[in-house]
Amino acid sequence: MAAYDFEGHITDIPDYPEPGVIFKDITTLLKEPEGFKATIDAIADHFKNAGITKVVGAEARGFMIGAPVAYSLGAGFVPARKPGKLPREVRSESYELEYGTDSLEIHTDALDENDVVLIVDDLVATGGTAVAQAHLIEQFGAKLAGMGFLMELDFLNPCEAIAKATDAEVFALVHVD
Amino acid sequence: MAAYDFEGHITDIPDYPEPGVIFKDITTLLKEPEGFKATIDAIADHFKNAGITKVVGAEARGFMIGAPVAYSLGAGFVPARKPGKLPREVRSESYELEYGTDSLEIHTDALDENDVVLIVDDLVATGGTAVAQAHLIEQFGAKLAGMGFLMELDFLNPCEAIAKATDAEVFALVHVD
Repeated sequence: MAAYDFEGHITDIPDYPEPGVIFKDITTLLKEPEGFKATIDAIADHFKNAGITKVVGAEARGFMIGAPVAYSLGAGFVPARKPGKLPREVRSESYELEYGTDSLEIHTDALDENDVVLIVDDLVATGGTAVAQAHLIEQFGAKLAGMGFLMELDFLNPCEAIAKATDAEVFALVHVD
Repeated sequence: MAAYDFEGHITDIPDYPEPGVIFKDITTLLKEPEGFKATIDAIADHFKNAGITKVVGAEARGFMIGAPVAYSLGAGFVPARKPGKLPREVRSESYELEYGTDSLEIHTDALDENDVVLIVDDLVATGGTAVAQAHLIEQFGAKLAGMGFLMELDFLNPCEAIAKATDAEVFALVHVD
Protein backbone atom coordinates (compact mmCIF):
# COMPACT_ATOMS: atom_id res chain seq x y z
CA MET A 1 0.00 0.00 0.00
CA ALA A 2 1.43 3.38 -0.99
CA ALA A 3 1.89 5.82 1.89
CA TYR A 4 -0.61 8.66 2.04
CA ASP A 5 0.76 12.00 0.85
CA PHE A 6 0.30 13.86 4.15
CA GLU A 7 2.55 16.79 3.21
CA GLY A 8 0.74 17.30 -0.08
CA HIS A 9 -2.51 17.88 1.84
CA ILE A 10 -1.10 20.38 4.37
CA THR A 11 -1.37 23.98 3.16
CA ASP A 12 1.49 26.44 3.62
CA ILE A 13 0.35 29.98 4.49
CA PRO A 14 3.30 32.36 4.05
CA ASP A 15 3.64 35.31 6.46
CA TYR A 16 0.90 34.07 8.81
CA PRO A 17 0.29 34.98 11.58
CA GLU A 18 3.27 37.32 11.11
CA PRO A 19 5.86 38.15 8.41
CA GLY A 20 8.53 35.47 7.93
CA VAL A 21 6.46 32.66 9.46
CA ILE A 22 4.97 29.89 7.30
CA PHE A 23 1.78 28.62 8.94
CA LYS A 24 1.00 24.93 8.34
CA ASP A 25 -2.76 24.61 7.83
CA ILE A 26 -3.89 21.04 8.54
CA THR A 27 -7.60 21.61 7.81
CA THR A 28 -7.04 20.63 4.15
CA LEU A 29 -5.76 17.25 5.35
CA LEU A 30 -8.38 16.60 8.04
CA LYS A 31 -11.33 17.34 5.72
CA GLU A 32 -10.32 14.47 3.42
CA PRO A 33 -11.86 11.20 4.68
CA GLU A 34 -8.85 9.18 3.54
CA GLY A 35 -6.33 11.70 4.88
CA PHE A 36 -8.00 12.03 8.26
CA LYS A 37 -8.20 8.25 8.71
CA ALA A 38 -4.59 7.75 7.59
CA THR A 39 -3.38 10.44 10.03
CA ILE A 40 -5.16 8.97 13.05
CA ASP A 41 -4.30 5.38 12.12
CA ALA A 42 -0.59 6.15 11.71
CA ILE A 43 -0.26 7.83 15.13
CA ALA A 44 -2.42 5.25 16.93
CA ASP A 45 -0.66 2.34 15.23
CA HIS A 46 2.73 3.59 16.40
CA PHE A 47 1.63 3.41 20.06
CA LYS A 48 -0.78 0.47 19.88
CA ASN A 49 1.41 -1.78 22.06
CA ALA A 50 2.32 0.89 24.64
CA GLY A 51 -0.60 0.14 26.96
CA ILE A 52 -1.97 3.69 26.71
CA THR A 53 -4.88 4.31 29.11
CA LYS A 54 -5.35 8.07 28.47
CA VAL A 55 -4.59 10.47 25.64
CA VAL A 56 -3.98 14.10 26.59
CA GLY A 57 -4.69 16.71 23.90
CA ALA A 58 -4.10 20.45 24.22
CA GLU A 59 -6.65 23.11 23.28
CA ALA A 60 -7.78 23.38 20.54
CA ARG A 61 -6.14 21.64 17.56
CA GLY A 62 -4.85 18.91 19.90
CA PHE A 63 -8.49 17.92 20.45
CA MET A 64 -9.01 17.24 16.72
CA ILE A 65 -6.15 14.72 16.57
CA GLY A 66 -5.96 13.53 20.18
CA ALA A 67 -9.60 12.55 20.63
CA PRO A 68 -9.75 10.22 17.59
CA VAL A 69 -6.35 8.71 18.48
CA ALA A 70 -7.75 7.99 21.98
CA TYR A 71 -10.83 6.40 20.42
CA SER A 72 -8.72 4.28 18.06
CA LEU A 73 -6.49 3.10 20.94
CA GLY A 74 -9.46 2.35 23.22
CA ALA A 75 -8.16 4.94 25.70
CA GLY A 76 -9.87 7.79 27.53
CA PHE A 77 -9.48 11.38 26.35
CA VAL A 78 -8.30 14.16 28.67
CA PRO A 79 -8.32 17.77 27.47
CA ALA A 80 -5.51 20.12 28.57
CA ARG A 81 -7.26 23.49 28.47
CA LYS A 82 -6.43 27.18 28.67
CA PRO A 83 -6.97 28.79 32.09
CA GLY A 84 -10.58 29.26 33.19
CA LYS A 85 -12.12 26.73 30.76
CA LEU A 86 -12.46 23.74 33.12
CA PRO A 87 -15.20 23.99 35.75
CA ARG A 88 -13.64 22.08 38.66
CA GLU A 89 -10.33 21.92 40.57
CA VAL A 90 -7.31 21.71 38.26
CA ARG A 91 -3.58 21.15 38.21
CA SER A 92 -1.79 23.76 36.14
CA GLU A 93 1.55 24.24 34.38
CA SER A 94 2.90 27.46 32.89
CA TYR A 95 5.13 27.75 29.85
CA GLU A 96 6.90 30.57 28.06
CA LEU A 97 5.78 32.06 24.78
CA GLU A 98 7.79 34.36 22.55
CA TYR A 99 6.23 37.23 24.49
CA GLY A 100 4.89 36.43 27.97
CA THR A 101 3.63 33.13 29.39
CA ASP A 102 0.60 30.88 29.08
CA SER A 103 -0.59 27.83 30.98
CA LEU A 104 -2.48 24.58 30.54
CA GLU A 105 -4.84 22.98 33.04
CA ILE A 106 -6.13 19.44 33.63
CA HIS A 107 -8.85 18.45 36.12
CA THR A 108 -7.34 16.95 39.30
CA ASP A 109 -9.42 13.76 38.90
CA ALA A 110 -8.49 13.24 35.22
CA LEU A 111 -5.31 11.19 35.70
CA ASP A 112 -3.74 9.08 38.44
CA GLU A 113 -0.59 7.07 39.09
CA ASN A 114 -2.01 4.01 37.29
CA ASP A 115 -2.38 5.85 33.99
CA VAL A 116 -0.09 5.39 30.99
CA VAL A 117 -0.38 8.60 29.00
CA LEU A 118 0.12 9.60 25.37
CA ILE A 119 0.32 13.31 24.50
CA VAL A 120 -1.09 14.02 21.02
CA ASP A 121 -0.97 17.32 19.14
CA ASP A 122 -1.01 18.61 15.58
CA LEU A 123 2.38 20.27 15.73
CA VAL A 124 5.56 20.32 17.79
CA ALA A 125 7.64 23.44 17.14
CA THR A 126 9.98 24.55 19.94
CA GLY A 127 8.54 21.86 22.22
CA GLY A 128 7.40 24.35 24.88
CA THR A 129 3.80 23.17 25.02
CA ALA A 130 4.86 19.51 24.95
CA VAL A 131 7.30 20.03 27.84
CA ALA A 132 4.63 21.85 29.86
CA GLN A 133 2.25 18.94 29.29
CA ALA A 134 4.95 16.46 30.32
CA HIS A 135 5.49 18.36 33.60
CA LEU A 136 1.73 18.59 34.12
CA ILE A 137 1.28 14.83 33.68
CA GLU A 138 4.18 14.28 36.08
CA GLN A 139 2.24 16.22 38.76
CA PHE A 140 -0.34 13.41 38.73
CA GLY A 141 2.25 10.65 39.17
CA ALA A 142 1.08 9.14 35.87
CA LYS A 143 3.50 7.52 33.43
CA LEU A 144 4.11 9.48 30.23
CA ALA A 145 4.75 6.82 27.60
CA GLY A 146 4.93 8.87 24.43
CA MET A 147 4.15 11.92 22.34
CA GLY A 148 2.57 11.67 18.89
CA PHE A 149 2.45 14.61 16.49
CA LEU A 150 1.15 15.12 12.99
CA MET A 151 4.07 17.48 12.24
CA GLU A 152 7.47 18.21 13.72
CA LEU A 153 9.42 21.34 12.81
CA ASP A 154 12.86 19.72 12.80
CA PHE A 155 14.67 23.02 12.24
CA LEU A 156 13.56 24.13 15.73
CA ASN A 157 14.93 20.88 17.20
CA PRO A 158 12.07 20.25 19.67
CA CYS A 159 13.36 16.78 20.63
CA GLU A 160 16.33 18.35 22.41
CA ALA A 161 14.05 20.38 24.71
CA ILE A 162 11.70 17.42 25.19
CA ALA A 163 14.54 15.00 26.06
CA LYS A 164 15.53 17.27 28.98
CA ALA A 165 12.03 16.90 30.46
CA THR A 166 11.11 13.26 29.75
CA ASP A 167 12.38 10.03 28.21
CA ALA A 168 8.99 9.45 26.55
CA GLU A 169 9.17 8.39 22.92
CA VAL A 170 8.48 11.14 20.38
CA PHE A 171 6.82 10.23 17.07
CA ALA A 172 5.94 12.61 14.24
CA LEU A 173 4.23 11.70 11.00
CA VAL A 174 5.58 14.60 8.92
CA HIS A 175 8.98 16.20 9.39
CA VAL A 176 9.50 19.78 8.23
CA ASP A 177 13.20 20.59 7.68
CA MET B 1 -25.41 -5.85 26.47
CA ALA B 2 -26.37 -3.39 29.20
CA ALA B 3 -26.41 0.24 28.08
CA TYR B 4 -23.57 2.36 29.36
CA ASP B 5 -24.52 4.72 32.20
CA PHE B 6 -23.71 7.96 30.39
CA GLU B 7 -25.58 10.21 32.81
CA GLY B 8 -23.84 8.67 35.81
CA HIS B 9 -20.49 9.75 34.36
CA ILE B 10 -21.47 13.36 33.61
CA THR B 11 -20.77 15.71 36.54
CA ASP B 12 -23.26 18.39 37.56
CA ILE B 13 -21.65 21.67 38.64
CA PRO B 14 -24.29 23.81 40.39
CA ASP B 15 -24.16 27.59 39.91
CA TYR B 16 -21.52 27.45 37.16
CA PRO B 17 -20.70 29.59 35.27
CA GLU B 18 -23.36 31.69 37.03
CA PRO B 19 -25.91 31.30 39.86
CA GLY B 20 -28.90 29.15 38.94
CA VAL B 21 -27.18 27.33 36.07
CA ILE B 22 -26.15 23.68 36.39
CA PHE B 23 -23.09 23.07 34.20
CA LYS B 24 -22.82 19.56 32.73
CA ASP B 25 -19.15 18.54 32.85
CA ILE B 26 -18.46 15.77 30.32
CA THR B 27 -14.74 15.38 31.10
CA THR B 28 -15.56 12.70 33.69
CA LEU B 29 -17.22 10.66 30.94
CA LEU B 30 -14.59 11.20 28.21
CA LYS B 31 -11.67 10.23 30.45
CA GLU B 32 -13.12 6.72 30.91
CA PRO B 33 -11.98 4.47 28.05
CA GLU B 34 -15.26 2.55 28.07
CA GLY B 35 -17.39 5.69 28.38
CA PHE B 36 -15.57 7.55 25.63
CA LYS B 37 -15.84 4.60 23.23
CA ALA B 38 -19.53 4.06 24.04
CA THR B 39 -20.27 7.76 23.45
CA ILE B 40 -18.60 7.90 20.05
CA ASP B 41 -19.94 4.51 18.95
CA ALA B 42 -23.53 5.42 19.84
CA ILE B 43 -23.51 8.67 17.87
CA ALA B 44 -21.64 7.19 14.89
CA ASP B 45 -23.82 4.08 14.86
CA HIS B 46 -26.97 6.19 14.65
CA PHE B 47 -25.77 7.84 11.42
CA LYS B 48 -23.77 4.97 9.91
CA ASN B 49 -26.14 4.51 6.96
CA ALA B 50 -26.62 8.23 6.22
CA GLY B 51 -23.73 8.47 3.74
CA ILE B 52 -21.93 11.14 5.79
CA THR B 53 -18.87 12.56 3.99
CA LYS B 54 -17.95 15.31 6.50
CA VAL B 55 -18.51 15.91 10.20
CA VAL B 56 -18.59 19.54 11.35
CA GLY B 57 -17.64 20.20 14.99
CA ALA B 58 -17.74 23.59 16.72
CA GLU B 59 -14.89 24.98 18.82
CA ALA B 60 -13.86 23.62 21.26
CA ARG B 61 -15.81 20.77 22.91
CA GLY B 62 -17.35 19.90 19.54
CA PHE B 63 -13.85 18.89 18.38
CA MET B 64 -13.56 16.28 21.18
CA ILE B 65 -16.73 14.45 20.07
CA GLY B 66 -16.94 15.41 16.39
CA ALA B 67 -13.44 14.33 15.36
CA PRO B 68 -13.72 10.76 16.69
CA VAL B 69 -17.24 10.42 15.26
CA ALA B 70 -15.83 11.48 11.88
CA TYR B 71 -13.04 8.92 12.23
CA SER B 72 -15.49 6.18 13.17
CA LEU B 73 -17.74 7.00 10.19
CA GLY B 74 -14.82 7.20 7.75
CA ALA B 75 -15.67 10.85 7.09
CA GLY B 76 -13.54 13.98 6.98
CA PHE B 77 -13.51 16.42 9.90
CA VAL B 78 -14.23 20.13 9.45
CA PRO B 79 -13.80 22.52 12.39
CA ALA B 80 -16.23 25.43 12.81
CA ARG B 81 -14.06 27.97 14.62
CA LYS B 82 -14.40 31.27 16.44
CA PRO B 83 -13.53 34.37 14.38
CA GLY B 84 -9.85 34.87 13.56
CA LYS B 85 -8.74 31.29 14.22
CA LEU B 86 -8.72 29.99 10.63
CA PRO B 87 -5.85 31.22 8.43
CA ARG B 88 -7.56 31.38 5.02
CA GLU B 89 -10.77 32.68 3.42
CA VAL B 90 -13.88 31.68 5.39
CA ARG B 91 -17.65 31.65 5.27
CA SER B 92 -19.17 32.98 8.48
CA GLU B 93 -22.47 32.86 10.36
CA SER B 94 -23.45 34.95 13.38
CA TYR B 95 -25.73 33.87 16.19
CA GLU B 96 -27.19 35.50 19.26
CA LEU B 97 -26.01 34.87 22.79
CA GLU B 98 -27.78 35.89 25.97
CA TYR B 99 -25.79 39.11 25.80
CA GLY B 100 -24.46 40.09 22.38
CA THR B 101 -23.56 37.95 19.38
CA ASP B 102 -20.85 35.52 18.34
CA SER B 103 -20.00 33.80 15.06
CA LEU B 104 -18.57 30.60 13.64
CA GLU B 105 -16.36 30.28 10.57
CA ILE B 106 -15.51 27.47 8.14
CA HIS B 107 -12.86 27.60 5.40
CA THR B 108 -14.43 28.23 1.98
CA ASP B 109 -12.79 25.08 0.55
CA ALA B 110 -13.92 22.81 3.42
CA LEU B 111 -17.31 21.76 2.03
CA ASP B 112 -19.04 21.65 -1.33
CA GLU B 113 -22.40 20.70 -2.84
CA ASN B 114 -21.44 17.00 -2.99
CA ASP B 115 -20.97 16.76 0.76
CA VAL B 116 -23.40 15.08 3.15
CA VAL B 117 -22.78 16.67 6.53
CA LEU B 118 -23.29 15.65 10.14
CA ILE B 119 -23.03 18.31 12.87
CA VAL B 120 -21.67 16.89 16.12
CA ASP B 121 -21.43 18.66 19.46
CA ASP B 122 -21.35 17.84 23.16
CA LEU B 123 -24.50 19.75 24.04
CA VAL B 124 -27.55 21.29 22.45
CA ALA B 125 -29.25 23.82 24.73
CA THR B 126 -31.31 26.57 23.05
CA GLY B 127 -30.16 25.33 19.62
CA GLY B 128 -28.59 28.67 18.67
CA THR B 129 -25.18 27.29 17.77
CA ALA B 130 -26.71 24.33 15.93
CA VAL B 131 -28.95 26.60 13.86
CA ALA B 132 -25.98 28.87 13.02
CA GLN B 133 -24.03 25.82 11.87
CA ALA B 134 -27.00 24.64 9.77
CA HIS B 135 -27.17 28.04 8.02
CA LEU B 136 -23.40 28.04 7.56
CA ILE B 137 -23.45 24.59 5.93
CA GLU B 138 -26.31 25.77 3.70
CA GLN B 139 -24.04 28.57 2.41
CA PHE B 140 -21.83 25.88 0.83
CA GLY B 141 -24.74 24.12 -0.90
CA ALA B 142 -23.91 20.96 1.05
CA LYS B 143 -26.62 18.61 2.34
CA LEU B 144 -27.08 18.65 6.11
CA ALA B 145 -28.15 15.10 6.95
CA GLY B 146 -28.17 15.18 10.73
CA MET B 147 -27.08 16.50 14.09
CA GLY B 148 -25.67 14.26 16.82
CA PHE B 149 -25.28 15.43 20.40
CA LEU B 150 -24.06 13.83 23.59
CA MET B 151 -26.66 15.79 25.58
CA GLU B 152 -29.88 17.63 24.85
CA LEU B 153 -31.45 20.02 27.36
CA ASP B 154 -35.06 19.10 26.64
CA PHE B 155 -36.45 21.81 28.94
CA LEU B 156 -35.07 24.45 26.53
CA ASN B 157 -36.79 22.68 23.59
CA PRO B 158 -33.96 23.09 21.06
CA CYS B 159 -35.65 20.87 18.47
CA GLU B 160 -38.32 23.50 17.88
CA ALA B 161 -35.70 26.13 16.94
CA ILE B 162 -33.75 23.61 14.88
CA ALA B 163 -36.85 22.42 12.96
CA LYS B 164 -37.42 25.98 11.73
CA ALA B 165 -33.95 25.99 10.15
CA THR B 166 -33.54 22.46 8.79
CA ASP B 167 -35.27 19.10 8.42
CA ALA B 168 -32.04 17.30 9.39
CA GLU B 169 -32.50 14.49 11.91
CA VAL B 170 -31.55 15.37 15.50
CA PHE B 171 -30.16 12.64 17.75
CA ALA B 172 -29.08 13.02 21.39
CA LEU B 173 -27.62 10.30 23.59
CA VAL B 174 -28.66 11.81 26.93
CA HIS B 175 -31.81 13.84 27.51
CA VAL B 176 -31.90 16.30 30.41
CA ASP B 177 -35.47 17.16 31.44
